[in-house]
Amino acid sequence: MAFGWIDEQALVRRRAGLVRTLRPRPADSPLLDLASNDYLGLARHPEVTEGAARAARAWGAGATGSRLVTGTTELHAELERELADFCGFEAALVFSSGYAANLAAVTALAPHGSLVVSDAGNHASLIDGCRLARGTTQVVGHADPDAVRKALATHEGPAVAVSDTVFSVDGDAAPLAALAQVCRAYGAGLVVDDAHGLGVLGEGGRGAAREAGLAGADDVVVTVTLSKSLGSQGGAVLGPARVIEHLVNAARTFIFDTGLAPAAAGGALAALTLLRREPERAARARAVAAELHARLTAEGLSAVRPDAAVVSVRAPSPEGAVRWAADCRAAGLAVGCFRPPSVPDGISRLRLTARADLSGVQIERAVRVIGETRP
Amino acid sequence: MAFGWIDEQALVRRRAGLVRTLRPRPADSPLLDLASNDYLGLARHPEVTEGAARAARAWGAGATGSRLVTGTTELHAELERELADFCGFEAALVFSSGYAANLAAVTALAPHGSLVVSDAGNHASLIDGCRLARGTTQVVGHADPDAVRKALATHEGPAVAVSDTVFSVDGDAAPLAALAQVCRAYGAGLVVDDAHGLGVLGEGGRGAAREAGLAGADDVVVTVTLSKSLGSQGGAVLGPARVIEHLVNAARTFIFDTGLAPAAAGGALAALTLLRREPERAARARAVAAELHARLTAEGLSAVRPDAAVVSVRAPSPEGAVRWAADCRAAGLAVGCFRPPSVPDGISRLRLTARADLSGVQIERAVRVIGETRP
Ligand SMILES: Cc1ncc(COP(=O)(O)O)c(C=O)c1O
Ligand SMILES: Cc1ncc(COP(=O)(O)O)c(C=O)c1O
Repeated sequence: MAFGWIDEQALVRRRAGLVRTLRPRPADSPLLDLASNDYLGLARHPEVTEGAARAARAWGAGATGSRLVTGTTELHAELERELADFCGFEAALVFSSGYAANLAAVTALAPHGSLVVSDAGNHASLIDGCRLARGTTQVVGHADPDAVRKALATHEGPAVAVSDTVFSVDGDAAPLAALAQVCRAYGAGLVVDDAHGLGVLGEGGRGAAREAGLAGADDVVVTVTLSKSLGSQGGAVLGPARVIEHLVNAARTFIFDTGLAPAAAGGALAALTLLRREPERAARARAVAAELHARLTAEGLSAVRPDAAVVSVRAPSPEGAVRWAADCRAAGLAVGCFRPPSVPDGISRLRLTARADLSGVQIERAVRVIGETRP
Repeated sequence: MAFGWIDEQALVRRRAGLVRTLRPRPADSPLLDLASNDYLGLARHPEVTEGAARAARAWGAGATGSRLVTGTTELHAELERELADFCGFEAALVFSSGYAANLAAVTALAPHGSLVVSDAGNHASLIDGCRLARGTTQVVGHADPDAVRKALATHEGPAVAVSDTVFSVDGDAAPLAALAQVCRAYGAGLVVDDAHGLGVLGEGGRGAAREAGLAGADDVVVTVTLSKSLGSQGGAVLGPARVIEHLVNAARTFIFDTGLAPAAAGGALAALTLLRREPERAARARAVAAELHARLTAEGLSAVRPDAAVVSVRAPSPEGAVRWAADCRAAGLAVGCFRPPSVPDGISRLRLTARADLSGVQIERAVRVIGETRP
């Protein structure tokens, strides 16, 4: 029977305790949120939701077509100018998601005959980009510029190194400056995904490339998402104007996808405006992460020192991690939970996200619940 | 130099007259729109834009995380129930775009060792799904159930046939009933992309599967987009509950992507409500397409008889098509323009979209402009 094999897979999943389920939340969830990627607490900020609402009214609920047909509005163009200016790049191109932006950047910058050197810890969207690209991918060890150097040394012709700036699971940062140096030595491009860096790293949240002194470099391309620090939906690629022009002409997830909904563009624009006015939000998110880390470590828990706003806490086992997250939830605290097979290194952990708008009392409560529920 | 090869490609594109450029439109474009996919004229309907605005206010500008973490809200669940019910399927799963929904459906339903039989005219997102899938893809001739039969006959193990329901370039419909019959004979699944069928085909716009008597079948999976007839953004997969449960557990563009923005979900929900109340909009879109076709043909133009709301008009050459579209635009009419290399068959055409809310006067004006500007 069609799809019969699905039932076998479902059975295996159930037996292994690996079934994923959706838990719809109400509009006013009573849970204390340390699980979302709303690092600056902007998703529900009235200026941001009003920005979204206003854009829907003025521009429509949808973009109505590919950005190359009817889907480009002056609102999209304004958002692109603002993103490029904020992060210090010549140009920007907005996509319907960060996932789509990553697929676009990797596939369009890795043509036939080229080499893509990809960090083993990269996000699924970069990995899918590598799989779709016409070039050859070489996966290298995590955060290892020397491995990138060795890979680049073997190749003639166009090459790019691809890396998250802040890795989504452990929250550790990539060695960007060293990566850029290696790439330059070999005339290779550097493509970095700043999904978890924008709004958190760099002066006023201007991102990891800015922090590493790479903003605006002609051999660096940055992808960002509008769905984390900017509290909205969508993604963008930032880089030299000629790279952006190339994406307009070559990236399938740009050409054959409906433009980002005006409300999402309007929400992200309002968030950028707010972040320019309140640049201290970025430092505050980092400070909350550092405090979470210090307090959890003081409780004897094993947590990775955060480079941005993600705090990863080791769990003793996959089952232990699942139970721990469930016990936190029962105690009113939402935390993320990663375990095999969605982590390639086999390590199970709780994933906590720091938000700039967490109060001292909330941080204390979170640490207490995590400590009391530890397996 | 990094990215140096881009300049060579840009030069080739410029020389061939193939440069794509973005033309941002103002909020109130004076152009008569026969280029968007807003088939029912709902993208700017006040009920739909209010639905989007209200959702942004009530639920936030973004979903804040993967739908498996914090990104699932009761609003997403409601939209899924409504979509499934409207189209006649057991369950639905909402994605950040139709592109992402197609990547998910194809990759998750074509595991290692399986066969994907893919129509040569399929949309880029289905093609990318085939490229990402672990199964083997066999591309078959356009709208050819017998070719699908031959491909399925060669294979042991899980198989799916994948097709657009309405092909995006020419607007012709796939032979769904015949495809389903062939798939059933071989125990294969049928995955169809109803991006251009939802809201236009089937009773009250319930889609191509409904029209073909396939809604709710246990071997049929339908993908839809919220960005065309529903005037919003996002996508969904509809099918048996066990297929949907499988996608929740296996589809990378579901698991590793931020949930659809509440405003987009709210806009799509409002559009569905409106379509239930005003089911005649679907028939009206088809009637407008038929009228456009009849009038253009009466003018001596070569147009494909529309099966849905897309009307494709042949142009004498790639350059002729580009000039024609530009002349239409200069005369106040926005039309789509397809030409190599974005059409695999090498045929250049204008692509017109019928909207349910086009008036008789507007249709007349469109036909007049197209006739007067013909190359
Ligand atoms: C590192 C990274 N890149 C890209 C994405 C995809 O961005 P989006 O959710 O906006 O599609 C995510 C998470 O969703 C991510 O964590
Ligand atoms: C046939 C078809 N499928 C899928 C898509 C992708 O849907 P979305 O634009 O919502 O991502 C499109 C157009 O954009 C399409 O024409």
